[in-house]
Amino acid sequence: MQTEVPHVIGIDLGGYHVSAAVVNPEGHLIGISERTVERFRPPAEVLAILVSAAREALERSGLGHEAIRGIGVGLPGTLRPTEGLCLFSTILNWQDVQIRDPIQEALGLPTCILNNVHATAVGELSFGAGKDVDNFACVSIGTGIGGGVIIGGEIYRGDSDSAGEVGHITVDPDGPECVCGNQGCLEALTAGPAIARMAAESLKLGAQSLLTDMAAQSQPIRAEHVFRAAREGDALAIKIWEKVGRYLGLGIATLITLVNPRRVILGGRVSQAFEFFGPSLKEEVRRRARVVPRDFTEILPSPLGARASLLGSAATALAEARCREVATVPKTV
Amino acid sequence: MQTEVPHVIGIDLGGYHVSAAVVNPEGHLIGISERTVERFRPPAEVLAILVSAAREALERSGLGHEAIRGIGVGLPGTLRPTEGLCLFSTILNWQDVQIRDPIQEALGLPTCILNNVHATAVGELSFGAGKDVDNFACVSIGTGIGGGVIIGGEIYRGDSDSAGEVGHITVDPDGPECVCGNQGCLEALTAGPAIARMAAESLKLGAQSLLTDMAAQSQPIRAEHVFRAAREGDALAIKIWEKVGRYLGLGIATLITLVNPRRVILGGRVSQAFEFFGPSLKEEVRRRARVVPRDFTEILPSPLGARASLLGSAATALAEARCREVATVPKTV
Repeated sequence: MQTEVPHVIGIDLGGYHVSAAVVNPEGHLIGISERTVERFRPPAEVLAILVSAAREALERSGLGHEAIRGIGVGLPGTLRPTEGLCLFSTILNWQDVQIRDPIQEALGLPTCILNNVHATAVGELSFGAGKDVDNFACVSIGTGIGGGVIIGGEIYRGDSDSAGEVGHITVDPDGPECVCGNQGCLEALTAGPAIARMAAESLKLGAQSLLTDMAAQSQPIRAEHVFRAAREGDALAIKIWEKVGRYLGLGIATLITLVNPRRVILGGRVSQAFEFFGPSLKEEVRRRARVVPRDFTEILPSPLGARASLLGSAATALAEARCREVATVPKTV
Repeated sequence: MQTEVPHVIGIDLGGYHVSAAVVNPEGHLIGISERTVERFRPPAEVLAILVSAAREALERSGLGHEAIRGIGVGLPGTLRPTEGLCLFSTILNWQDVQIRDPIQEALGLPTCILNNVHATAVGELSFGAGKDVDNFACVSIGTGIGGGVIIGGEIYRGDSDSAGEVGHITVDPDGPECVCGNQGCLEALTAGPAIARMAAESLKLGAQSLLTDMAAQSQPIRAEHVFRAAREGDALAIKIWEKVGRYLGLGIATLITLVNPRRVILGGRVSQAFEFFGPSLKEEVRRRARVVPRDFTEILPSPLGARASLLGSAATALAEARCREVATVPKTV
């Protein structure tokens, strides 16, 4: 029976990047490798970069191949995890791609795949702000908005694996068009591109702001600039974050009213600006979510930040490794 | 061991009425008794009417007391079912009322209580449109709007028993005030009183309609009048239902996007007008719920109508009776 501490490799694949790390059962990252990925490259090319990042992470960890029990890969899209297939991913522009088998063969390790939003929720459940609660929701705000709901300690998938899509609930019925085809979705009002658009529109109307200089130096303006400007006390940037918080509060009030989670954990790059949008978000939730006991639901930024998906993929690989070991006849008694 | 077909008494208590019926394991109502209840009477008085309705139902069923295995009571409010307590009910104006014990003593039968929205969901699960699906949502539209979510064949209660409150999600951020303290809730725009208000406002603005005569005969105008006028082809009434359908579609699109149920079952008195609000409701759902596979979710009126809560209370009493019988040493082997 293997008695050493089991390690796995967690991998987070996005539209622009891949991160890989060796992870121990406490959720510590031991070796990390980060690569950028050129967008919309063929699957074989992307998977080769992913494999090379995994090899580099292992090398940096100082551990041998024999110490690793498996690999977990989180990626955006609709997957069929038991078959290792990505059925469909708009962000990667993939359709019917076998992911698991090539990684498994190249690295010689059992590999599992899961949706990156589900991975984020599992990451919080295993190592983050969801460790001590059974029912919680994750809202991940970046280029888009993803949501994952944990019910009774497990991912709630709904009846066609589409549950928890908080980015695509309508918060302003006449609001801007969303990539999904609806209008006024939470994502169309509060994800990174929407924040950048609000800033650009205000500048066009002649608002005075530090953002004017930032825009002159770096076109187009991004949500990150609005965050930096707010940190320097810029009034326009602060006002934009307050507005973002109100929309987020509207959406999260709805999530609370329907799902009644104990916690709502905010992740993704945009959540770094929590200090600026958090107060108006919480005020809006208090105003709108009235049928849940007052101040019952905690709303907090993820302690894992951008690492939640990688950690959740690692946690899933660890769990699968344990299942295999329980099912295997011990080598020595 | 008892081998006869087990029967129970199901009871539905509302703010204005109590219905009781003997129910068999197939969900057939064998004897029915209906009583009106004067609003806001003391609990002892209401419970006496309830007990007398149960006795009348039993008498009308032609069955003897020995054929009945238990009683299930559904009522609106926050309950502690294991203790038989109603902690709080705005509709009944009750606080900390022991319900189970007096009924149990008066009728000499094991009694269980449950929230009427949960009872409605259990009714659909046991005998209605939820019989063959594991994940579905009930939306009950009457004086208010209640919601019940079934996940994996069980009521999803959330972390503080507040889940599924679809009536109190915001569908128009600047909309009319709601009884809950928020504004623009689905309930404030589409429950009976909101429909009546829309009609009254249109008439005040001088709209020509059959509703003008109805309003002259019966003040104030009610949602029921708007239903009757629509059935007679009245253009204003038809337009009001179309608007109600659009708001309901907005709210149900959000429910689908977050919970991803296989079916949404509409109950309550207002759902009788489904033929008038259903088309615009479905159109709005198709427009708004874009991340769920198209036409995946069925939206349909409840086949049980106003009986769903009574049947769900009966189903719960039947299930509890079966548990007791399994746990009991057989009388004869």
